[in-house]
Amino acid sequence: MKPLLETIRPTTFIESAKLKDHLGLDITIATETFQHTGSFKFRAAYNLASNVENDTIITASSGNFGQALAYACKLLGKKAVIVMPDTSAKVKIDAIRNYGAQLDLIDTNKIGRNERVEQLAAEMPEAYQASAYDDQFVIDGNATLGDELAEHGFDAVLVPVGGGGLISGVVTGLKRKGSRTEVYGCEPLLANDAARSFRAGEVIANEKEPQTIADGARTISLGNLNWPIIQSGVKDIIEVSDENIAEALRMYFNLANLKCEPTGAVSLGAILEDKERFSGKKICLVVSGANVDPDIYRGLI
Amino acid sequence: MKPLLETIRPTTFIESAKLKDHLGLDITIATETFQHTGSFKFRAAYNLASNVENDTIITASSGNFGQALAYACKLLGKKAVIVMPDTSAKVKIDAIRNYGAQLDLIDTNKIGRNERVEQLAAEMPEAYQASAYDDQFVIDGNATLGDELAEHGFDAVLVPVGGGGLISGVVTGLKRKGSRTEVYGCEPLLANDAARSFRAGEVIANEKEPQTIADGARTISLGNLNWPIIQSGVKDIIEVSDENIAEALRMYFNLANLKCEPTGAVSLGAILEDKERFSGKKICLVVSGANVDPDIYRGLI
Repeated sequence: MKPLLETIRPTTFIESAKLKDHLGLDITIATETFQHTGSFKFRAAYNLASNVENDTIITASSGNFGQALAYACKLLGKKAVIVMPDTSAKVKIDAIRNYGAQLDLIDTNKIGRNERVEQLAAEMPEAYQASAYDDQFVIDGNATLGDELAEHGFDAVLVPVGGGGLISGVVTGLKRKGSRTEVYGCEPLLANDAARSFRAGEVIANEKEPQTIADGARTISLGNLNWPIIQSGVKDIIEVSDENIAEALRMYFNLANLKCEPTGAVSLGAILEDKERFSGKKICLVVSGANVDPDIYRGLI
Repeated sequence: MKPLLETIRPTTFIESAKLKDHLGLDITIATETFQHTGSFKFRAAYNLASNVENDTIITASSGNFGQALAYACKLLGKKAVIVMPDTSAKVKIDAIRNYGAQLDLIDTNKIGRNERVEQLAAEMPEAYQASAYDDQFVIDGNATLGDELAEHGFDAVLVPVGGGGLISGVVTGLKRKGSRTEVYGCEPLLANDAARSFRAGEVIANEKEPQTIADGARTISLGNLNWPIIQSGVKDIIEVSDENIAEALRMYFNLANLKCEPTGAVSLGAILEDKERFSGKKICLVVSGANVDPDIYRGLI
């Protein structure tokens, strides 16, 4: 078994003069779109799958964690069982199938993802139940991105937020490296449970799965392990309209030659919400992934 | 003035498990899509603009060299005059304008690009006339990519061919590093002057500007300085149908999360022409650039 740091691909830093000039900001992009399976989730999934002793791992995933776990399990000779909404991006469904995982597609109007995982876990008592974000192995895996970001002395990094797995990892990594970089969460306005939780000082959940175009952020609430890390380690959480998420995706395409998925564009979308806020600062935008259906992408660019 | 090697961005190497599995080949992508101005041409343009003494530089360019020269001249405080067909990708035209260059759009059915450059040169005798490929500064600048590729011990690298500036640079760089990597040119079938020249042993020109979707390869013929380097240093030149160029562009989008322009996809297109040819070899596909109009890209994915 290869150690995590030999298996993950370091993030790809991109500086686009066109994007910087267009926004008048000192922007560096840290893109996880070329990470194995096309998103940061592989960091989490490989760390988890290589550390638990179970041979079968069950998870609920809107797609990217499922894909990452399926690939990690393939590399490690384990079995992945993936529960995901039947509305998930087709490329994500196909990819998971191709990695040899067992797929369980559900109608989220009829049954919750976690509920279905519980059902499957009862059927497979030997399996490990992995949360895509609320799991220490997941946070530790994602912390490797924080380690990398710590080397660059950014004033601020902006990170997309769904269940909080990535941002809690980034905070953890930066902190253990002694970095003073500030961390901002960036969340779709239509799925703003993390922003509301941050303001309220306690975890507030969405009533149902939110229908933002950022499908990777359609989570009900932050995880129990993620919340205290976010509450104490994040500077603010910025809410981003779906219009600005789409505009950010287009800007990446046109100005930085970067293909990303809507969720990956949320951190640039946060800049578009208030361009003045980060003026004069050396900022880093984390792009979390790029797995998007061509039909949806075509409509957005 | 910053030296070339501090100014250019090293190429971005990507390995996509999905692409490798899909084709059953050991493929590494070397993409210049994140190079300054979105293509390898910046290597050439910056090297040229920083080495000639003239304050004004005139060139004919289908877009990427023009854009790169415009940006290089902006960085160096020089004036760029760019002649390009009025059918060039709109993003390329806009970008050149934004870099502050003087634009000269022509109807190539009425006047040749080089002819127009001659007219302008007569009006501006103090200017340097730069070929996008047939210039020693251009070849030397592009050779820096060959230097980088030499570090990786590839069996073969596949390089898109238009006027031959990139491939002659790659051959030059690999050679001076003592690399034994074989170099293959990849050319649109609709613009196959280089392949025909290679077979004939002498430079053969296209009768008029070819209308392949790979707009970066719509050149009339190889350059005089490029030809001997190609003839002696290239293993073969593979002709690629426009269908396979389009399919390759789609594969990059879907399997590697890579946005590229049609010309950039020609090297993967060459693989699709004959998948068996590179079986068992460690190959590298050079992706030359990513500046493509959203409308065209939308139609292709």
